[in-house]
Amino acid sequence: MNKIDGGLDQVPGYRFSAMECGIRYKDRLDFCIIVTDVPCNAAGLFTTNKIFAAPVRLCRERIGNSIRAILINATNANASTGEQGYNNTLLLTEAVAKELKSEKDSVLMASTGVIGHQLPVDKMLKAVPDLTGSLSRENGSVIPKAIMTTDTYPKSIACEFSTSLGKFRLAGTAKGSGMIAPNMATLLSFLITDCPVDKKTLDLLLKKCINITYNAITIDGDMSTNDTVLLFSPVSERYIQKEDDIKEFENALEYILTELARMLVMDGEGATKFVIINVTGAKDDIEAVMIARSVSESLLVKTAFFGTDPNWGRIACAAGYSGASVNEENLSIYIENIPLLEKGVPVASDAKKLKQAMSEREFSVLIDIGIGNGKAKFYTCDISYDYVKINAEYTT
Amino acid sequence: MNKIDGGLDQVPGYRFSAMECGIRYKDRLDFCIIVTDVPCNAAGLFTTNKIFAAPVRLCRERIGNSIRAILINATNANASTGEQGYNNTLLLTEAVAKELKSEKDSVLMASTGVIGHQLPVDKMLKAVPDLTGSLSRENGSVIPKAIMTTDTYPKSIACEFSTSLGKFRLAGTAKGSGMIAPNMATLLSFLITDCPVDKKTLDLLLKKCINITYNAITIDGDMSTNDTVLLFSPVSERYIQKEDDIKEFENALEYILTELARMLVMDGEGATKFVIINVTGAKDDIEAVMIARSVSESLLVKTAFFGTDPNWGRIACAAGYSGASVNEENLSIYIENIPLLEKGVPVASDAKKLKQAMSEREFSVLIDIGIGNGKAKFYTCDISYDYVKINAEYTT
Repeated sequence: MNKIDGGLDQVPGYRFSAMECGIRYKDRLDFCIIVTDVPCNAAGLFTTNKIFAAPVRLCRERIGNSIRAILINATNANASTGEQGYNNTLLLTEAVAKELKSEKDSVLMASTGVIGHQLPVDKMLKAVPDLTGSLSRENGSVIPKAIMTTDTYPKSIACEFSTSLGKFRLAGTAKGSGMIAPNMATLLSFLITDCPVDKKTLDLLLKKCINITYNAITIDGDMSTNDTVLLFSPVSERYIQKEDDIKEFENALEYILTELARMLVMDGEGATKFVIINVTGAKDDIEAVMIARSVSESLLVKTAFFGTDPNWGRIACAAGYSGASVNEENLSIYIENIPLLEKGVPVASDAKKLKQAMSEREFSVLIDIGIGNGKAKFYTCDISYDYVKINAEYTT
Repeated sequence: MNKIDGGLDQVPGYRFSAMECGIRYKDRLDFCIIVTDVPCNAAGLFTTNKIFAAPVRLCRERIGNSIRAILINATNANASTGEQGYNNTLLLTEAVAKELKSEKDSVLMASTGVIGHQLPVDKMLKAVPDLTGSLSRENGSVIPKAIMTTDTYPKSIACEFSTSLGKFRLAGTAKGSGMIAPNMATLLSFLITDCPVDKKTLDLLLKKCINITYNAITIDGDMSTNDTVLLFSPVSERYIQKEDDIKEFENALEYILTELARMLVMDGEGATKFVIINVTGAKDDIEAVMIARSVSESLLVKTAFFGTDPNWGRIACAAGYSGASVNEENLSIYIENIPLLEKGVPVASDAKKLKQAMSEREFSVLIDIGIGNGKAKFYTCDISYDYVKINAEYTT
């Protein structure tokens, strides 16, 4: 498996289009589509929020079908919009299906933006033929821009890997993270490959890889109404089946998702530092995740990161209230391998060295619980003045 | 029951003393004591954090004893200090007991401040005779100042109530809230009464009243290593027993705790607004609490409060991920009785009126889930630039 330059445009079998439809603002890309040349299997993971958007409902209903396209709009979440909101997703995806001359229920939809407003559906329906009329593989580079909300840069990445059926490619794009964006504009992520993978394997691998990537990043701990991750792979008569081939595909998927996760955290609203939280020695992996999440989400830990303050007491405290087994006398904490606490005993470390390590744009924290073999890795960021500013000043 | 002027000094049977011991900083009150004239029953509630301070361990061991004093220090939490930290609490409380000529295990201790540093125990031991040598009832007004860390003002309140055994008084003081203070300097609260209440009733009522007061405030959702709430009442041969008398005491306790909770939230680090979160119509009271807590702790909701942004989508979203049953079509949201969402349908409200309501220093949010009879009330605050500033710039 190796990284290749470019993004979605690097994967054969897909075409793209994006436009300024004026859904909420003028003069910005807000409406786009990914079309597959042949019917595809799709695996999807969606928000667990009980208040979920109309397009999430649509995706859940159609994810088992052969898929030909995903229609995406930014600036309006189509959430808390009731039956009318859902009917609008039906109208829009049917219009796309008609243009593509494909099955009515072969089109998915994803939205991001403000909650509680109906889509300007007439305007959007009118735009569908323009959208489907200007499809090209080269347009792949525009999709990451068209799905952005408060992201400061478009995110995409591609790689190539070899199997016994030949070389294949996998590319992905993503926007937002956790509930970082205003109005829960959130995590949308689309992944495409030309490697034929059967639906069951696709589902399994997406779930497995998301668990250690997107589910291991946290920016503010909130959960969106619109979170959607979709992975497409062509329907085929000959799927990859050999263990080695599937492992190759899994490695590629994990790589793409890890790199996108890293970009999402680095672009966290107002974030100035990327911090890797490693937990070892927990009772089991589940408890390690509880501790990693608790530390990653602690406001006091995150403000200490921003303040370049090696305040291990806040880290110990967040581990302590995680719900996992933690004993003071077994607990060790390190920042960039500099010990702060070892087996419950504070260590007088070189303050200057510590300050320097925490001044870097990226550093790691190791929390060793010292009671078992459970481990977990989380990615988090600091919380700065700008986080408050961005989220306070965004008005509906 | 009626409020009376003053604080701890209003309750007969208690004497106080506070001093500048130089535990961590010079020229600030950091060491104080509350002494009871007669042995007292004590009820206590402590942090649920698995990393808890040495004085919390001591209190848990001694809370069933007849109590004569509580020794308190600020600026050093005596947490993550191992056996040495615990032995220091033994030394200090024994020194106090000796001065008071009382039982060795009749003295409790509470600490707040930085984690992971041993107390300067020699200096403190030397100071104990000075502390116990200058006890007076009038000094009651100094205790709230001596226990402060980042609090901007001392907090105390007193009331008087009538029973068939005569009139009694109850007073309380508190500092910090949730894990708002730097280094988890946290919630310490001490309540004293001259009303004789048996230990079992004292335990029961403290738990019950804390549940709807301190457990219903949230500033940043973190949990301290040192959280300690203690309630003292004299050991007696004649306790209040009649239902009406116990109800009077309970009302007084709830009043004192509610007012202290309100002060704690209003003094939240960098907080500019006090917001009451009412939840009605949840499946049951437990689910109502889950929703109220989730909304109260959402960073996006809190920054929207700061930004005077009636962003009900963020409120709906936080309700949706609370884990409680929430259906979009039953959900209604109001700010100061102005409807924003009714039964899942967004309401076009007077934007100017809404902006005005949210510009007040105090306002309320009502979230009606519309599916049952569960209800809950939480107190929260906004998150401002100053929250980040205070927590980032505090250095260990």
